Amino acid sequence: MLPAISTIPFANDMPSNPEQAAAGFDPVERGRSIVVRVRPLTRERFAPFGEVIEAGHPEQRRIVNDGTAERFHDLANIDPGPQGRAIVSIFRSRPRELPLPLVSMERHPLASQAFVPLSGRRWLVVVAPAGGPPVAEGLVAFLASGEQGVNYAPGVWHHPLIALDAPSDFLVVDRSGPGENCDETVLDRPARVETVDDGGPRHGDDR
Amino acid sequence: MLPAISTIPFANDMPSNPEQAAAGFDPVERGRSIVVRVRPLTRERFAPFGEVIEAGHPEQRRIVNDGTAERFHDLANIDPGPQGRAIVSIFRSRPRELPLPLVSMERHPLASQAFVPLSGRRWLVVVAPAGGPPVAEGLVAFLASGEQGVNYAPGVWHHPLIALDAPSDFLVVDRSGPGENCDETVLDRPARVETVDDGGPRHGDDR
Repeated sequence: MLPAISTIPFANDMPSNPEQAAAGFDPVERGRSIVVRVRPLTRERFAPFGEVIEAGHPEQRRIVNDGTAERFHDLANIDPGPQGRAIVSIFRSRPRELPLPLVSMERHPLASQAFVPLSGRRWLVVVAPAGGPPVAEGLVAFLASGEQGVNYAPGVWHHPLIALDAPSDFLVVDRSGPGENCDETVLDRPARVETVDDGGPRHGDDR
Repeated sequence: MLPAISTIPFANDMPSNPEQAAAGFDPVERGRSIVVRVRPLTRERFAPFGEVIEAGHPEQRRIVNDGTAERFHDLANIDPGPQGRAIVSIFRSRPRELPLPLVSMERHPLASQAFVPLSGRRWLVVVAPAGGPPVAEGLVAFLASGEQGVNYAPGVWHHPLIALDAPSDFLVVDRSGPGENCDETVLDRPARVETVDDGGPRHGDDR
């Protein structure tokens, strides 16, 4: 089985953008950069981190409105947390370019957070398991289609929203309520996504 | 000021589709049909019924994710009601054809219900005020763009989802919980939407 995450020299990764510079990357102290491989998003692969929000699964399907519509029912564990209420917002995101440095991650310890694309465009999901601060080698990346949203379970580390290709809107379902509900952290070492187009199955890779 | 709702003879409205037939419309007892005029959806016009879910209003705008995204924050009064939890589902709806007979209306007395288009296509919103059963003459119709969702306040009467032009998906935020949360009623007399393309302002119409 091929490793899902490989390392390559970080030689050419100057702090060419503000995020890298702000994170204190010093080209003099070049280390080795983690290149995070991107795989297609599926509900099974994403299960450790939350739910994929998409239509199509027969067990979630109900016929409604006198047969004019299908309802794919209750697709995510929306959790507004203690004394919280679920709210809806729209994120309007600029697209990010590849290769994309991954510098910081965030989590919402009190509540879930869902993103559903409204613009029909693919987007990139980068996560790490809930728990202590994520490390670059533990990052997992998925390419979501324009018909796939995700719901991050409470505490799951995730990269800030990554739109691709063009400015894109997303419906967000998260929490309003008391308490501090956003932790941010900088990764222990540089990581990046090189491309989203090589995520197909490879010989011996059953992940 | 022209009336927003006009009446015309119902002479040619045979029960040509199952909805009309099921509602017991008897061509022998032809009455006069209400033709509901459709106007463009705006947050101000929709305010008596709930909220329009759309990006763009400066007072809801926040800059997030290191400047890569705008967050239009908390766009609807999501209300899961007593002992309820907010859930997300996807409705996949067949498009309806115009003229469209309006036969039945529904309401969710315990909770709000939001619909946000995922397919980028315009759709039709038909509502009546919360309270007693709606009458045909009290119907209000709005043409929503593909970038506009709505959230029906608890108890607001609304027509089942009306997609236009092509099969369309919608994200729905409503309620799971105990109790009966769907009332349906048949209108007191026939009503219909003739067209969605004449909703522009007219002389003397300031509504």
